Amino acid sequence: MKTQVCIIGGGPSGLLLGQLCHKAGIDAVVLERRTRDHVLGRIRAGVLEQGFLRLLDEAGVETRMDRLGYPHDGTLISFENFETRIDFRQHTGSSVMVYGQTEVTRDLYEAREKVGAPTLHEVADVEIVNAGLDEAGGCTVSVTHEGQRKEIRCDYVAGCDGFHGPSRQAIPADKRHEFEKLYPFGWLGILSETPPVHHELIYANSTRGFALCSMRNETLSRYYVQAPMADDPQDWSDAAFWAELKRRIPERFAETLVTGPSIEKSMAPLRSFVCEPMQYGRLFLVGDAAHIVPPTGAKGLNTAASDVHYLYEALKACYLDRDPAAMATYSETALRRVWKTQRFSWWMTKLLHRFPDTDDYELRIQRAEIEHLASIDSAQAMLATNYVGLPY
Amino acid sequence: MKTQVCIIGGGPSGLLLGQLCHKAGIDAVVLERRTRDHVLGRIRAGVLEQGFLRLLDEAGVETRMDRLGYPHDGTLISFENFETRIDFRQHTGSSVMVYGQTEVTRDLYEAREKVGAPTLHEVADVEIVNAGLDEAGGCTVSVTHEGQRKEIRCDYVAGCDGFHGPSRQAIPADKRHEFEKLYPFGWLGILSETPPVHHELIYANSTRGFALCSMRNETLSRYYVQAPMADDPQDWSDAAFWAELKRRIPERFAETLVTGPSIEKSMAPLRSFVCEPMQYGRLFLVGDAAHIVPPTGAKGLNTAASDVHYLYEALKACYLDRDPAAMATYSETALRRVWKTQRFSWWMTKLLHRFPDTDDYELRIQRAEIEHLASIDSAQAMLATNYVGLPY
Repeated sequence: MKTQVCIIGGGPSGLLLGQLCHKAGIDAVVLERRTRDHVLGRIRAGVLEQGFLRLLDEAGVETRMDRLGYPHDGTLISFENFETRIDFRQHTGSSVMVYGQTEVTRDLYEAREKVGAPTLHEVADVEIVNAGLDEAGGCTVSVTHEGQRKEIRCDYVAGCDGFHGPSRQAIPADKRHEFEKLYPFGWLGILSETPPVHHELIYANSTRGFALCSMRNETLSRYYVQAPMADDPQDWSDAAFWAELKRRIPERFAETLVTGPSIEKSMAPLRSFVCEPMQYGRLFLVGDAAHIVPPTGAKGLNTAASDVHYLYEALKACYLDRDPAAMATYSETALRRVWKTQRFSWWMTKLLHRFPDTDDYELRIQRAEIEHLASIDSAQAMLATNYVGLPY
Repeated sequence: MKTQVCIIGGGPSGLLLGQLCHKAGIDAVVLERRTRDHVLGRIRAGVLEQGFLRLLDEAGVETRMDRLGYPHDGTLISFENFETRIDFRQHTGSSVMVYGQTEVTRDLYEAREKVGAPTLHEVADVEIVNAGLDEAGGCTVSVTHEGQRKEIRCDYVAGCDGFHGPSRQAIPADKRHEFEKLYPFGWLGILSETPPVHHELIYANSTRGFALCSMRNETLSRYYVQAPMADDPQDWSDAAFWAELKRRIPERFAETLVTGPSIEKSMAPLRSFVCEPMQYGRLFLVGDAAHIVPPTGAKGLNTAASDVHYLYEALKACYLDRDPAAMATYSETALRRVWKTQRFSWWMTKLLHRFPDTDDYELRIQRAEIEHLASIDSAQAMLATNYVGLPY
């Protein structure tokens, strides 16, 4: 089998890159470890930046989102009962779109099926054979598929296979530098078929820890509370979760919160991670394969999308403008924006969570930061600018 | 002896409060532990916010400053050879004034002498007798002066006597909460009779640590390098200092730096400190008596000035509008701004220094923060807004 771009990973970034390549006339195949149904069953965040929306538009998959997504013009930040609203539209002229990652994935699958863009499912034992050699002749991805060992010859490999995928590991350890920060807590999250407590997201800092009120749509809510990673989600009854959430959000919301049985309950770790560089020979890392952010501020999927943008631009320059040298600057260009979103996610996380080693002084600084945000226009503008997405 | 306001401490904030009171017809006396010459011999920072300038104006002491001060419309921030300029005027319409604290003190002394406002020098064994009782009859400050024990009866005491003065200690330990953060390094500073390397300040982050290029005037420069507090300044030769400074600032400045013999060399610790509340009965803390910031961002003297403003406004309401209840909200009002300047000083310090326990991830975040500052308008506006001074 031969292709120009072999995309490892059939999540939203792999599918988006594949669809963009297809539309541009660049030959690409997507390899996915799981079944289509499994991929579509994963429930993930869904606060999308404008840049991501433009990419989806370019990929021709915006129709359902335009109908079913919820544009959010702002967000609430609270500290106990003190609240401040950050108005994205006022400060940036822009907004974000609340639309589940599962929906984005579904739209991309359907769009790719309609045009006949190839995705191989249940691909195992992926091996990138000679990525680092940078031979003129390209490189080879070797996989097991439908019981057989197959070889895919390609010009480039796009590693869109997440934090635990094989792509990053294909860069020799002495050719990459990994930067990591683990946070001493997790997010315990539930999904419930109840109306959201507020039409915008609420990021809540409280003496009992962080909470987030989010949503999928008008009848499906997503709530989180900061909790010790050692906690087993199954030990948290729904009643205990709702009681804890109510203690962390401003009283006016605690009073009006509609509770109900959870239909999903899980614990997510918080991690900051970056691998430098994001390319090695003919291999290019995209999204979680190269970097992870804590979910505060919803930058994970959006930063994967900005990687897709930079790689797609380089591929277009390579194939359409016959300028393969454009591929050489991908990592440097992508990393500049990656580190800015790392900074923002780290700052939002520090601003809103209670850390076990936080002293009294730092607690006051946290409160001062939120009061500063509430009273200083440029501080609001800075948060809004980052939240709706830094320019590509 | 009787007065309305007994001001403990004859540094710039005590003198400024005294002079403002005098002009408003409020009776006040300033008590100073040292001689006039000692006070005027202290060399301190001198980057003044607009609010401070307005207070000096109101106190009628702006004439020499208008002639001898240097308005600065911006500042440079560097990271190795990368530079970004923060334009105060563009972002805030305002600027700061470089004018030594010694000069401010001299101007205040002269203004007070001209109008005959009383200052007692070489006052020892200050004791605030019954501040907490909040008797209708006022309170008493007992001192040793000219070999005799004297009592000053007053309505209110303003504690402008710095971090080590007796005023804060007059609040019983169980009636105050102290918040503190020590930084694991100091600033080694020199004063030299050389022209400043640049017409604006340079705040430099480098792999070797922080450096600051500051100035007093066109022929007098003030330079600092981050150094271990255990270092003895006398062990640093002038040659060693200049060599270290040159390694930390962008090359174009290292090449043009004019060096010369130091006329002063000293080590200053970096500390963040706040005492809550800032009042107790008839005693009101002002400036360093209640709070300390690290010098990064030059907020120490300026925050003392904002305290003077709030206390002066309360005193005017009390005596001129016959509303003594106005005194009750001083601490709460002053602390709101105090914590915002604490936040800013802490942030500037974290942004620019190398901490012994900083890991690779945090170093990249530091660099990302500076690149973010260089590229995002609202980030520059936020720094500028804080640097020229938050509104009173």
